[in-house]
Amino acid sequence: VTRRYNLVFIGFGNVGRALASLLLGRTEQLRAEYGIEWRLTGVASRRSGWLANPAGMDVAALLEGSVREVAPARAAGVEEWLSASEAQVLFEMSSLNAATGEPAISYLAAALTHGAHAITANKGPVVHGYRALRDLAAGRQRGFRFESAVMDGAPIFSLFRTALPLASVQAFRGILNSTSNFVLSCMEAGKSLEEGVAEAQARGLAETDPSNDIDGWDSAVKVAALATVLMGVPLTPQAVQREGIRGLEAGAVRRARVEGCPYKLVCAASRIEGGVRAVVASERVTSTDPLSQVNGTSSAVQFVTDVLTGLTIVEHDPTPSTTAYGILADFVDLARL
Amino acid sequence: VTRRYNLVFIGFGNVGRALASLLLGRTEQLRAEYGIEWRLTGVASRRSGWLANPAGMDVAALLEGSVREVAPARAAGVEEWLSASEAQVLFEMSSLNAATGEPAISYLAAALTHGAHAITANKGPVVHGYRALRDLAAGRQRGFRFESAVMDGAPIFSLFRTALPLASVQAFRGILNSTSNFVLSCMEAGKSLEEGVAEAQARGLAETDPSNDIDGWDSAVKVAALATVLMGVPLTPQAVQREGIRGLEAGAVRRARVEGCPYKLVCAASRIEGGVRAVVASERVTSTDPLSQVNGTSSAVQFVTDVLTGLTIVEHDPTPSTTAYGILADFVDLARL
Repeated sequence: VTRRYNLVFIGFGNVGRALASLLLGRTEQLRAEYGIEWRLTGVASRRSGWLANPAGMDVAALLEGSVREVAPARAAGVEEWLSASEAQVLFEMSSLNAATGEPAISYLAAALTHGAHAITANKGPVVHGYRALRDLAAGRQRGFRFESAVMDGAPIFSLFRTALPLASVQAFRGILNSTSNFVLSCMEAGKSLEEGVAEAQARGLAETDPSNDIDGWDSAVKVAALATVLMGVPLTPQAVQREGIRGLEAGAVRRARVEGCPYKLVCAASRIEGGVRAVVASERVTSTDPLSQVNGTSSAVQFVTDVLTGLTIVEHDPTPSTTAYGILADFVDLARL
Repeated sequence: VTRRYNLVFIGFGNVGRALASLLLGRTEQLRAEYGIEWRLTGVASRRSGWLANPAGMDVAALLEGSVREVAPARAAGVEEWLSASEAQVLFEMSSLNAATGEPAISYLAAALTHGAHAITANKGPVVHGYRALRDLAAGRQRGFRFESAVMDGAPIFSLFRTALPLASVQAFRGILNSTSNFVLSCMEAGKSLEEGVAEAQARGLAETDPSNDIDGWDSAVKVAALATVLMGVPLTPQAVQREGIRGLEAGAVRRARVEGCPYKLVCAASRIEGGVRAVVASERVTSTDPLSQVNGTSSAVQFVTDVLTGLTIVEHDPTPSTTAYGILADFVDLARL
């Protein structure tokens, strides 16, 4: 049995473009292996506005930059756009607002209310809207998914949802921010913090203002997302005890690596009486700690559960395609519902 | 909706007992979260024969050793036993026959033919019977699962089945045999190979004849199982180029660890023209290789796929309960079908 889905994108930057390319490249495989056909019926971005074309857009033309030519209609806002595009699956890839999760939460809620599945690559809605969006999705018999919000396309949320039934996460510990880990690797190689940040910016890893990464905010948001979803304890980023890598001295970072016990920006959470204690802090890890070998843009997380003593997932050298793959995997999962 | 399943065990050693305990301890959670009720209606072992009791056995009494008292009927063979126990799910936990996979393959086939789901913790049927059992299961609309056959309860097969849609494994590399890895750790701590083997035996890790582990056969069987299932290329253990750790000199192993590039028994497979090339060999890994920190009874595997550059799964310090959990996870997965 083959089923066709109308897909709509909010955001058409690096990740949105990578997802469009991935969908195009996997069209035959999606049909053959999962009975999934698709067309892109809506694209919204700050530049183009709310474009809709229920007959399906020319995705190749869109990737070549003909954003306005592919869609006859432009809607006035998200609800009108979801209707005009006859949306069945929303891919929400807007910029992160870590403080509130908006406007992404409203977009996702609008999609679920409209009757579409809602997928986001955004941590904000997970931290600030998880329970509300999960319950809204359940009430509409639709799905809310967010695999790419933490560790790009590496399967973390889906691992616990599908492959680890009955498991309860007692604690986790990991390296979740690519930029700060990359900067530490640069400092170990002899650069200053500022030079490391500049190199991260040159590679497109860090924003113009790198403080979100360097001061541990991005890590704190990811810790909050993991604790909220996998430990069932709503946690705000503000409740995470947080320290970044800004205070580290380059010579100390270099010497620590030579001595085999490098500095890492470690994220950790564990259950305590009545909740979860969560910390982001730079620390020296021992040479026998698997985190000591997670370098550059790679990331890792170790879980302690009541069913497995320890399980570590490491993602090596992610790209925008890796994030796009996590989003596509969410779509395939929802298409099986 | 709650559904009750008649479960039957072949094998009631360490793993079978751990599974029975785990099922008992999770009875409420299985009902509440998955709508699964269960009773144990058949147990078969070399000592007790084919015991069946369709009314359900007293599992606590069975765990205390009253094997014969819990079942009125004894069947003459597997088919009669499956019928007498009204089996709906077979847990196959017999001893491994790596050369042929028998009699486990016949037991699993009999269960599927009878109309039961078939779950094994045994590598033999995966290597020697994967395609036949998979196709038989599909034809009967039943499931064939084997998560615990490689890396105990760590989710490997289920990861690719459920959380990594569209992915094609290009290559993998890992440490898959606990005993040889434990012996290497002992040698690094100053012991001889023989002393390391004796300690592994004292801890219940190694068999009386340790050659299966030390000479790389167990690793080769696991490589063959992973390649057969995840790369879609049937591979026999005999086709794996194989070398164990027997030839390693204790002083060299100790020095290699001090120098930061320890010896590991590394399993590797990669696609080549027309098939898969697979090797098990002791080699010195670099200090930046995540495998260098996989010590003692822990195991790990790194996958290169067409969708994620690199994904590593590490399982730390498994126990018989870990293996039992993998089997239980297979059952929960099949109950969702």
